Amino acid sequence: MSRVGVANVLVLCLVLNSLVLLCNGGITSRYVRKVEKTIDMPLDSDVFRVPCGYNAPQQVHITQGDVEGKAVIVSWVTQEAKGSNKVIYWKENSSKKYKAHGKTNTYKYYNYTSGYIHHCPIRNLEYDTKYYYVVGVGETERQFWFFTPPEIGPDVPYTFGLIGDIGQTFDSNITLTHYENNPTKGQAVLFVGDISYADTYPYHDNRRWDSWGRFAERSTAYQPWIWTTGNHELDFAPEIGENRPFKPFTHRYRTPYRSSGSTEPFWYSIKRGPAYIIVLASYSAYGMYTPQYQWLEEEFPKVNRSETPWLIVLMHSPWYNSYEYHYMEGETMRVMYEAWFVKYKVDVVFAGHVHAYERSVRSITSAHLVSCKL
Amino acid sequence: MSRVGVANVLVLCLVLNSLVLLCNGGITSRYVRKVEKTIDMPLDSDVFRVPCGYNAPQQVHITQGDVEGKAVIVSWVTQEAKGSNKVIYWKENSSKKYKAHGKTNTYKYYNYTSGYIHHCPIRNLEYDTKYYYVVGVGETERQFWFFTPPEIGPDVPYTFGLIGDIGQTFDSNITLTHYENNPTKGQAVLFVGDISYADTYPYHDNRRWDSWGRFAERSTAYQPWIWTTGNHELDFAPEIGENRPFKPFTHRYRTPYRSSGSTEPFWYSIKRGPAYIIVLASYSAYGMYTPQYQWLEEEFPKVNRSETPWLIVLMHSPWYNSYEYHYMEGETMRVMYEAWFVKYKVDVVFAGHVHAYERSVRSITSAHLVSCKL
Repeated sequence: MSRVGVANVLVLCLVLNSLVLLCNGGITSRYVRKVEKTIDMPLDSDVFRVPCGYNAPQQVHITQGDVEGKAVIVSWVTQEAKGSNKVIYWKENSSKKYKAHGKTNTYKYYNYTSGYIHHCPIRNLEYDTKYYYVVGVGETERQFWFFTPPEIGPDVPYTFGLIGDIGQTFDSNITLTHYENNPTKGQAVLFVGDISYADTYPYHDNRRWDSWGRFAERSTAYQPWIWTTGNHELDFAPEIGENRPFKPFTHRYRTPYRSSGSTEPFWYSIKRGPAYIIVLASYSAYGMYTPQYQWLEEEFPKVNRSETPWLIVLMHSPWYNSYEYHYMEGETMRVMYEAWFVKYKVDVVFAGHVHAYERSVRSITSAHLVSCKL
Repeated sequence: MSRVGVANVLVLCLVLNSLVLLCNGGITSRYVRKVEKTIDMPLDSDVFRVPCGYNAPQQVHITQGDVEGKAVIVSWVTQEAKGSNKVIYWKENSSKKYKAHGKTNTYKYYNYTSGYIHHCPIRNLEYDTKYYYVVGVGETERQFWFFTPPEIGPDVPYTFGLIGDIGQTFDSNITLTHYENNPTKGQAVLFVGDISYADTYPYHDNRRWDSWGRFAERSTAYQPWIWTTGNHELDFAPEIGENRPFKPFTHRYRTPYRSSGSTEPFWYSIKRGPAYIIVLASYSAYGMYTPQYQWLEEEFPKVNRSETPWLIVLMHSPWYNSYEYHYMEGETMRVMYEAWFVKYKVDVVFAGHVHAYERSVRSITSAHLVSCKL
């Protein structure tokens, strides 16, 4: 799986409620999930602990903040008070510190009221550089770090991790640990949808969005997760008056959609190292004439394969799926967009939704599906 | 086409840019459209005239205001000033007058600013009754009338007109005249999408929404048009900063979506006389788990065929279409919902989009399509 001098390194693992995939030159991990479905970790689990200190920032996470990878969006939640929406950051081995100011929102969902959710873009970062950053400025300060990606180009090795359908079961914890402990370190996570599974609780208990944010912080605060919307992000519950799809997701997670000319946070594109990554939305309108359709039609011709030889697409609901579970659910999007994928020579599509591993050889219709099951 | 003692009377006609269909016991009109495509009527055409008088209400139109047909939404535009948002109404041959108060909005679209758009629901109407109503109260008053439908039930004759893709060409005028002059008078219009075609003008020139409203007033002010969204209602134009789909439509036209448990104005249902009418949205998300999908899944079982033996569905993009134009565009919605249509025995589906007449015999997949072209 090398191309134009690019090492695109991935390794594979699987758990029931979640999926972590990294490919290593075609060599996949021997890791096999347990067959049994495990249950959610209780709210008083250690992985859900609230950080110590007054109004301490929690649920810290970062994502890419622009198309080019020179910006990062830092997000976090404060519970007791609004607190500072400032981020202080600096390059490793540099004494010069920078400040950025973010925005803060809250939301209500049925009988739940969120904490103060902060999103702060920091821009004009240097490539291939380690940055430290501090949130909770002036109160309980917490410090983290991240690496910016190498400058965009065909000859820069880069390692993506791939996670989807993660949830917060005991297996979710094993999944994340497996990703962290893998000898081939992922540098950014391509997340293919279904985050917290809060919607499986009565009234979509949004405390489960908070617990998930605290659980994943050990990864999300240190490397960007590239978000795709799954069905569990819809949180559509008219029976309790919650009619706005994606309400918790859009308040809590950000995507850099505007910088790629998208008009909604659910579909967008980024470049990162040697890869051009297009994120699609299985649960937004995608038919002809719709915003997502129009955007994608204009997006594909923008890909410059000399600059980014790898063209990767993320979506939640797979187009090729031989499993009974969710069988054919991705079919209508396949009908709509598959011809473009062929025309523009998409290298690889990563999807989630089906909690099982399956990959197909190059195929252009589901009739040609060749599956490779674990 | 009679059923359970119900006369459902329709007659057919066709024009290039628009489609009017009424069926008369299976007998269709001999009217055949011209082959040539005609052009839009100029803005100074008589059919677009602004009514006389200071701040005179214009673009007056009504639609059904609840599921049961006991409410009507009266809408109109005032241009010079906000004016009164009141509607005065009374039963024919009654001296007792009623008042209702509406709400007023305006919107901007690129370099266009709308007039004051008023929407006023009037409720608790009696069935099968002629009502007069006045808008522009205290300024230039204009009076119109409408008939409420008969009480819902299987044995009430009712005549629907069917119009789609109307636009404002010279043929649009012929279409509307043809509908008005038809000996079998339509009592309400089932409109299957594509209203003004303003989006075919530079910057989606929204003055063309105003001219359309004035053009159609001679029908829309006197009988309810039941709105379906077509692709020309999307008005999605990110290149000029207009990112909110359906912006002019949602400001100008109302649907009674909340009363049928829908969460968006684009899909909803009403009962009218012997018919249960479900309106679907070809250009909103309709995949599994989406709001439209969830709504429709819960909606079909609510239909009581003893009460409303006719189950009619409106949509814009047809599922069965043998024409090259827009071929297969409705296919993905067909894949998604066709099995429900079969299970719940939908009597008839009306669609627009393809500017040509085609009907099919009972079919459950496009493979069984039998077309009947004029």
